[in-house]
Amino acid sequence: MCAANAQPLIDPYHSRDVPREEQAPRVDPVVYGKPGDGPLSADQLADFERDGFLFLPSLFSADEVLELQKHAAGLAKKVDPDQDWVIAEPDSRTVRSVFKVHRLDEVFVELAREPRLAGVARQILGSDVSVHQSRINFKPGFRGKEFYWHSDFETWHVEDGMPRPRAVSASIILTPNNEFNGPLMLVPGSHKVYVRCVGETPEDNYKSSLKKQEIGTPSVDALTAMVRDGGIVAPKGEAGSVIFFDCNTMHGSAGNISPFPRNNVFFVYNSLENALTEPFGADKPRPDFLGDRDAPPVGRL
Amino acid sequence: MCAANAQPLIDPYHSRDVPREEQAPRVDPVVYGKPGDGPLSADQLADFERDGFLFLPSLFSADEVLELQKHAAGLAKKVDPDQDWVIAEPDSRTVRSVFKVHRLDEVFVELAREPRLAGVARQILGSDVSVHQSRINFKPGFRGKEFYWHSDFETWHVEDGMPRPRAVSASIILTPNNEFNGPLMLVPGSHKVYVRCVGETPEDNYKSSLKKQEIGTPSVDALTAMVRDGGIVAPKGEAGSVIFFDCNTMHGSAGNISPFPRNNVFFVYNSLENALTEPFGADKPRPDFLGDRDAPPVGRL
Repeated sequence: MCAANAQPLIDPYHSRDVPREEQAPRVDPVVYGKPGDGPLSADQLADFERDGFLFLPSLFSADEVLELQKHAAGLAKKVDPDQDWVIAEPDSRTVRSVFKVHRLDEVFVELAREPRLAGVARQILGSDVSVHQSRINFKPGFRGKEFYWHSDFETWHVEDGMPRPRAVSASIILTPNNEFNGPLMLVPGSHKVYVRCVGETPEDNYKSSLKKQEIGTPSVDALTAMVRDGGIVAPKGEAGSVIFFDCNTMHGSAGNISPFPRNNVFFVYNSLENALTEPFGADKPRPDFLGDRDAPPVGRL
Repeated sequence: MCAANAQPLIDPYHSRDVPREEQAPRVDPVVYGKPGDGPLSADQLADFERDGFLFLPSLFSADEVLELQKHAAGLAKKVDPDQDWVIAEPDSRTVRSVFKVHRLDEVFVELAREPRLAGVARQILGSDVSVHQSRINFKPGFRGKEFYWHSDFETWHVEDGMPRPRAVSASIILTPNNEFNGPLMLVPGSHKVYVRCVGETPEDNYKSSLKKQEIGTPSVDALTAMVRDGGIVAPKGEAGSVIFFDCNTMHGSAGNISPFPRNNVFFVYNSLENALTEPFGADKPRPDFLGDRDAPPVGRL
């Protein structure tokens, strides 16, 4: 590699290639934009920078939520459960997740472009953005499964080739989040540490990791230390509230035995200056529905 | 059956013998005693009667909790994980539950006799009491399993031969309960309805039901209606707090992916006027560690 090459000699976010787990500092900024650049105030940007997430209660109105719920349910009925971008229960074929919804339904295309979402992402990331991944999750009451702790960026870097942690997720909750239905739990401050995980990436890892992630998750010691430092926060609120979180924020969710379902729409906005390259730790990139390799700016969706 | 027999012709709490789930009224009182009979005030007794549970924060001091934790950990080390009254993980043989602790360790014998616990039970049940079942639960962080909704009394009646819902459980929490570590969830008011469940009791049902209860649990429709009427409450508090709950109160707990363990000591106090008979819906009673058939009054433990 010659000195003229702008790439560092060593990938600061390499992972799954170390004999022992390591914690590395995040060498990239969290917030790129300023208060005047978008909907967020200086305080909100500072909160996001410090915590790695921001909860905006009732960002969408009850009427808007109703419309989204209707289209989400319609989509779940319409899609073919055998498509790889649809996650269905093996026995009942009930649809649990539909990916790439920003390519499927005009309502979700519009939602992805929505200034209350994309505008926040552009402001945080300091550039125009594209949708790296989108999905609707239907978590039923009584038997909603847990999702173990993970940083999205670790997987997106290693398996999708996302160069830098310059992406932000928006989870639009379509049902109320309460303490009983397994709401998203985040570890404040965890986005500033990058955990290099041990373990090689199996071929087509995504097929099992979408059900239960086992590769690319930190050790219990690392998680314990992160929670000791930052605690855990699980934002609660009405349908229509939105949780924005940094791509490297450690998060997970408990199972749901309550009668209350937990449904959401999920967009990952990536900076256009952070376009995907070859995966940093896998033989081939994951399918497009998990990491869109040809993602246009949201304005041209 | 002759008329002189005091038993009703039809068991008001029959279950697992119906073609369809039924909801039956509880025909027995919840509270038998009066304010002067024990530690609870008139308000506390009224709360217990209405809700089916009562949370007493920090009933035991930090020093007392430390002593209990020490003995609990010592017991977990000392017991043989192959005994049927010890629940251990198949792979690591780490002990998860130890039953009949009121028969094993003087500290837990004393705890069972403790007026702050047994005195409350005697007051609620209006009689002297014995210990129907006792155990210590060690719920680790990160991989604590969920327990699905159930009424204890349904199982104790059908499988152990407990005639009437005249028993109360005390859960002494040895680690703080918070919203993240899968605390006990209770449905207020659910103790006044008896759900007759469908499904026959398999032989030695307890061997699988201790891991995952599938027989004797209400339908999602029944649970949804109960929660619509009563909501869900998950008491939170410091180690040393105690949750008393009626044997027919619907309860469960979510899994625990947080780093915080959730350990407790658990006593079921049964009225001496409610001694076990033959099981009402199983060929043979469960082992003594699950339902003590020869339980002395707590004073003579």
